[in-house]
Amino acid sequence: MEGDARFRRTETDFSNLFARDLLPAKNGEEVTMQFLLEVVEILTSYVRKTFDRSTKVLDFHHPHQLLEGIEGFNLELSEHPESLEQILVDCRDTLKYGVRTGHPRFFNQLSTGLDIVGLAGEWLTSTANTNMFTYEIAPVFVLMEQLTLRKMREFIGWPNGEGDGIFSPGGAISNMYSVMVARYKFFPEVKTKGMAAAPRLVLFTSEHSHYSIKKASAALGFGTENLILLSTDEKGRVIPADLEAKVIMAKQKGYVPLFVNATAGTTVYGAFDPINEIADICEKYNIWLHVDVKRVSGLLQGCNSMCAGYLFQPDKQYDVTYDTGDKAIQCGRHVDIFKFWLMWKAKGTVGFEQHIDKCLDLSAYLYSKIKNREGFEMVFSGEPQHTNVCFWYIPPSLRGMPDGTERRERLHKVAPKIKALMMESGTTMVGYQPQGDKVNFFRMVISNPAATQSDIDFLIDEIERLGHEL
Amino acid sequence: MEGDARFRRTETDFSNLFARDLLPAKNGEEVTMQFLLEVVEILTSYVRKTFDRSTKVLDFHHPHQLLEGIEGFNLELSEHPESLEQILVDCRDTLKYGVRTGHPRFFNQLSTGLDIVGLAGEWLTSTANTNMFTYEIAPVFVLMEQLTLRKMREFIGWPNGEGDGIFSPGGAISNMYSVMVARYKFFPEVKTKGMAAAPRLVLFTSEHSHYSIKKASAALGFGTENLILLSTDEKGRVIPADLEAKVIMAKQKGYVPLFVNATAGTTVYGAFDPINEIADICEKYNIWLHVDVKRVSGLLQGCNSMCAGYLFQPDKQYDVTYDTGDKAIQCGRHVDIFKFWLMWKAKGTVGFEQHIDKCLDLSAYLYSKIKNREGFEMVFSGEPQHTNVCFWYIPPSLRGMPDGTERRERLHKVAPKIKALMMESGTTMVGYQPQGDKVNFFRMVISNPAATQSDIDFLIDEIERLGHEL
Repeated sequence: MEGDARFRRTETDFSNLFARDLLPAKNGEEVTMQFLLEVVEILTSYVRKTFDRSTKVLDFHHPHQLLEGIEGFNLELSEHPESLEQILVDCRDTLKYGVRTGHPRFFNQLSTGLDIVGLAGEWLTSTANTNMFTYEIAPVFVLMEQLTLRKMREFIGWPNGEGDGIFSPGGAISNMYSVMVARYKFFPEVKTKGMAAAPRLVLFTSEHSHYSIKKASAALGFGTENLILLSTDEKGRVIPADLEAKVIMAKQKGYVPLFVNATAGTTVYGAFDPINEIADICEKYNIWLHVDVKRVSGLLQGCNSMCAGYLFQPDKQYDVTYDTGDKAIQCGRHVDIFKFWLMWKAKGTVGFEQHIDKCLDLSAYLYSKIKNREGFEMVFSGEPQHTNVCFWYIPPSLRGMPDGTERRERLHKVAPKIKALMMESGTTMVGYQPQGDKVNFFRMVISNPAATQSDIDFLIDEIERLGHEL
Repeated sequence: MEGDARFRRTETDFSNLFARDLLPAKNGEEVTMQFLLEVVEILTSYVRKTFDRSTKVLDFHHPHQLLEGIEGFNLELSEHPESLEQILVDCRDTLKYGVRTGHPRFFNQLSTGLDIVGLAGEWLTSTANTNMFTYEIAPVFVLMEQLTLRKMREFIGWPNGEGDGIFSPGGAISNMYSVMVARYKFFPEVKTKGMAAAPRLVLFTSEHSHYSIKKASAALGFGTENLILLSTDEKGRVIPADLEAKVIMAKQKGYVPLFVNATAGTTVYGAFDPINEIADICEKYNIWLHVDVKRVSGLLQGCNSMCAGYLFQPDKQYDVTYDTGDKAIQCGRHVDIFKFWLMWKAKGTVGFEQHIDKCLDLSAYLYSKIKNREGFEMVFSGEPQHTNVCFWYIPPSLRGMPDGTERRERLHKVAPKIKALMMESGTTMVGYQPQGDKVNFFRMVISNPAATQSDIDFLIDEIERLGHEL
């Protein structure tokens, strides 16, 4: 591999070089390779530091500060090109003022952590720079998507992994698809005639479910008031009897129950709705259950296809059933599969299993550390249901105070204040929110492969350090 | 920069190393750096070859061939991890059996071309690995998005770039937003009460417009039959009188005209609808014109916001108007801005302008070469309207034949056959489709920065070479 003499970084003066000097410019090859190697040096240096606990998670600045241009970092675009030297500086500054989401102490979102193989997969994806339109221009990625989806369906117990599916730009769009597919299954004429062709439809979801179901009901023309929220038990799980009562009530009012969303791991509590009992109710009343066990082959295509002639020519020389693009509500579709496929290859199924087990162990560890600790109070009793751990920190000034409006109002301000101090000191990040009648509390979600028990310890200490005087 | 001793590629045996040996594993740093450098070697080698005209555009295989596993390239996922050595082989194979969309002779899609600064931007984006949810975790990218959108609005003539906007996962979703925003503007109650709360709405678009408008009318609950297609002139431009007649007819039938989509560069012909005349009609009948000139501040937020407490806490320490995520129909949103921002920095506005001029020159060159050439026939008369050039190749066997069913049927098969031969020889790629009553014709779209006149010459020769005997 060392035989390729061009793969060697040398001192290059980029101050008089510009984008126009890169490939495909004549003789742009050497400049291009050196420029990309400089970029890689910036990126690998960032990766190294991200995993180093002495590095800050972020270097916080307010919007107006960044807009004013800190230390010459100018976000404004101009008429004239910048030198490649300046482009490299811009790259460094962009990373410098960002948030290190791969840092072992970044707990702010489920999407924490930086997987090196996944990173390599993304670099390759952007270099391949193609699109999931058709097999014609993404043969390998289209097949990877099909095989991976089949493997995932096998996993959840569908015989031979039969069924259908597509990767979408995220969970919110996926949830939107689920509502669209249910509507198409029961009222296919809505595709051509619109919602006016259907009876008054209602949808059901947990009051604790993700807000994307609400976004979907607004966007697809159901209306958020026709999304009926289901009551939950103390741990945030849907109460099946409440579902049945609300289905009956809706029918009595002349509505047609179309769709129930069951959640496996709610956003805040990490609760799992009782799927079997919900499934029985859905079967009884003929309602589509999202997280369904029926085969849906052909529904996505039927629901979304428009057969655009310039992309999905029927007279191609290959098997055009592999042109899966028309199943999507998108035209161009980003190649999301490769990163995931490569990670699966590199870890094996067992690797994902171990990762999830480790995260569950860490959340159990956090729970065991704080459940009886002075100044900490759990949002609901008992073990965490998933990797989510929800708790309040009670500063000494509030500890003796009886429950009531004043305590609630003061406690509501504690988590935001601690979070702001965390961000200003840059040491760690964790999310908070109110939920129902509960004032602001912290929600830890553990999914970062870099996190260890020592990082959990650090978080607890940091909350105490920053919140002690409040 | 050479001071960093770790940034040097050395011979590493990856055959006994696995994903678990990479960061954040203890002592994983050196393996990680060496692994990433091997990946970069694979990628830069791919980039170099992509711009080399002696490289094939693709090495075509049928789906069943790739699924059977060519030369050991195994797409199936397994229980157990693969070595990093095998992961590197998988990366090479993935690129080998893909399509080189950056190749100077890849003309198949508008999304052709590989921009080196854009590529660097994407590598950085995936390394930063954050999300456009909130300013909190994407401060720099959120500001870049706002500044870039404002710059774009200035460009199209909005005073001070005022208005609103958001990057979405592509044009189809953007078009869907445009319909949603129009609906929210005129019938905000649809958000909560659904389409039942609105009168019978109709939408208008060119018969030549992109199919995403159709997808949006199906998805959003209008129904494709309530999307009224407008007739076009010979060059594919909407006829304003047809719009007005259809608006009047719809109103007479009791429908409410809501939305007109005007296209600036249709998918196949590259036609520009007469926007001023369409705007006058929209103003007269109070219809939303997509490609509009009104300010829309606040509409996206009003239309889509659901105020999820766990993301969009109102009690943060910074100005939360920068938490723009709730304008989207998505929750997690990919960072699409950085690549574009970095390219703009590196080229300047003038760089984009020069690129577009070059593409227009090349399409004029193609037109001038084939307009009077034996065996070529233009789909419509006159100069190309944009970078699209639409034409038939007439093989010698069809040249003397009078127009009629037999000639049409045979001509319909010519473009698919030539395209299949192109793909099998791997020399070039160009799209084809029928349109209305016109049988299959080639549509050239020129946007690849690497393409030159010699590549246009090559395409013409190649079509003649492959089609001569048909």
